[in-house]
Amino acid sequence: MYVLGIDIGSTASKAVAMTMDKKIYAKAVVSHGTGAIGPKQVYEKILSESKLEKSELKRILVTGYGRFVFDDADSQKSEISCHAKGVLYLSPDVRTIIDIGGQDVKAILLNDKGMITNFVMNDKCAAGTGRFLDNMAKVLNVKTHELGALSEHATEVVNISNTCTVFAESEVISQLSKNVSVENLIAGIHQSVAKRVSSLVYRNGIVKEVALSGGVALNKGVVKALSEALKLEIIVHEDCQFSGALGAALFALEEIGQK
Amino acid sequence: MYVLGIDIGSTASKAVAMTMDKKIYAKAVVSHGTGAIGPKQVYEKILSESKLEKSELKRILVTGYGRFVFDDADSQKSEISCHAKGVLYLSPDVRTIIDIGGQDVKAILLNDKGMITNFVMNDKCAAGTGRFLDNMAKVLNVKTHELGALSEHATEVVNISNTCTVFAESEVISQLSKNVSVENLIAGIHQSVAKRVSSLVYRNGIVKEVALSGGVALNKGVVKALSEALKLEIIVHEDCQFSGALGAALFALEEIGQK
Ligand code: SF4
Repeated sequence: MYVLGIDIGSTASKAVAMTMDKKIYAKAVVSHGTGAIGPKQVYEKILSESKLEKSELKRILVTGYGRFVFDDADSQKSEISCHAKGVLYLSPDVRTIIDIGGQDVKAILLNDKGMITNFVMNDKCAAGTGRFLDNMAKVLNVKTHELGALSEHATEVVNISNTCTVFAESEVISQLSKNVSVENLIAGIHQSVAKRVSSLVYRNGIVKEVALSGGVALNKGVVKALSEALKLEIIVHEDCQFSGALGAALFALEEIGQK
Repeated sequence: MYVLGIDIGSTASKAVAMTMDKKIYAKAVVSHGTGAIGPKQVYEKILSESKLEKSELKRILVTGYGRFVFDDADSQKSEISCHAKGVLYLSPDVRTIIDIGGQDVKAILLNDKGMITNFVMNDKCAAGTGRFLDNMAKVLNVKTHELGALSEHATEVVNISNTCTVFAESEVISQLSKNVSVENLIAGIHQSVAKRVSSLVYRNGIVKEVALSGGVALNKGVVKALSEALKLEIIVHEDCQFSGALGAALFALEEIGQK
């Protein structure tokens, strides 16, 4: 028997199937978030890829921004709790979690017992989020997932003075017209995200170890810039994208008495 | 003899030529703001249209966001001071000035002697500014200057839940795909500007009479929405676009001892 954790974000849905003894059995991600498509797709994807039958799932717990739109779940839980639980499963020493999602940025502070002691979220402003990177990539005519690799070829970091996504877009367009190198601009864009995110993190408090999760954690340029802004090393677990879904699966186990 | 006041904004430059006895002699506006073109263009335009000679100008005073880039001026003065002075020239009873520009929103509170007692500006975020309206117009495939008239045909106001320009754009696109009427969406967009601006104004304090200025004041839909949000009448002088330039001309007169 297994449990299933599903994390429905704003731009992607993730699922993790877990064994009764807390081992990851299967995972899946689809690039559709909340709405009709994402949750259904990721549910079907993990079932078909893992060859699991619905009858083998003892419990389904759903979390994330879009958790209220998925009817096949047995229960739901807040994304902050699931996120923290999932990150601690992957990296037990983490005390500060930074999550940069498609449309929001969260900072979570944990005590040495893994309890959430402070939390701050910015979901009102696109600056510093995945959406900021998407818009900049469009202006630069590259793909968002290429930004990280491209920034590795930067010879200097172009300062982007506007934090606002809208004004920063104009600034980047004007820099492009002056033939500033795309790679150097991307390094500046990553620095802009790092500035924005680090000010949120400082506001919330910061204790080592620090882990980054969320879709944007896959961008090595952002990780580097954020690590420089915070002046410390940042843990990026290869499964960090699944933190929320992992936490959801772990809570599902608890709910059926499987501690 | 005359004096000249020039107001170099982010998206437009305005000029006013004034007689020695404080009468408006000529005015001009060009849709280029700060940079090399705007100030030069508006200067040449007012000279050619009014048939004034440079030698007839006793003093040129420049204000606005781009005032540091114009070399032909004798002096310069902050936009807030010029703005307040210009608005009081047009409407002497005003105590609260709301200025919605291309890239910023300002609120100025005056005492009964016309002195500035409080001031707040948002120039870091595109929400609530002319830029917000420009972006929305683009999404709706209409011209910014058409928004006001179009909103008069609205049958209801569609609520735009996101304040952020970037997220509001996505929201409007998604509403369009559901065949929501463009006019009703525009009414919602104006309400969004009004919500954003009124919260800034309330923060700064509000005393009657209230005047609106800046390029966005020409949009009747925004004026209506803002008047509803603040629950009071708003003065929009037909020359309100020239407030800053007018104030600059008045200060130029003071500087040459013409009180
Ligand atoms: S600063 Fe820019 S990105 Fe942030 S809320 Fe305002 S408009 Fe949106």
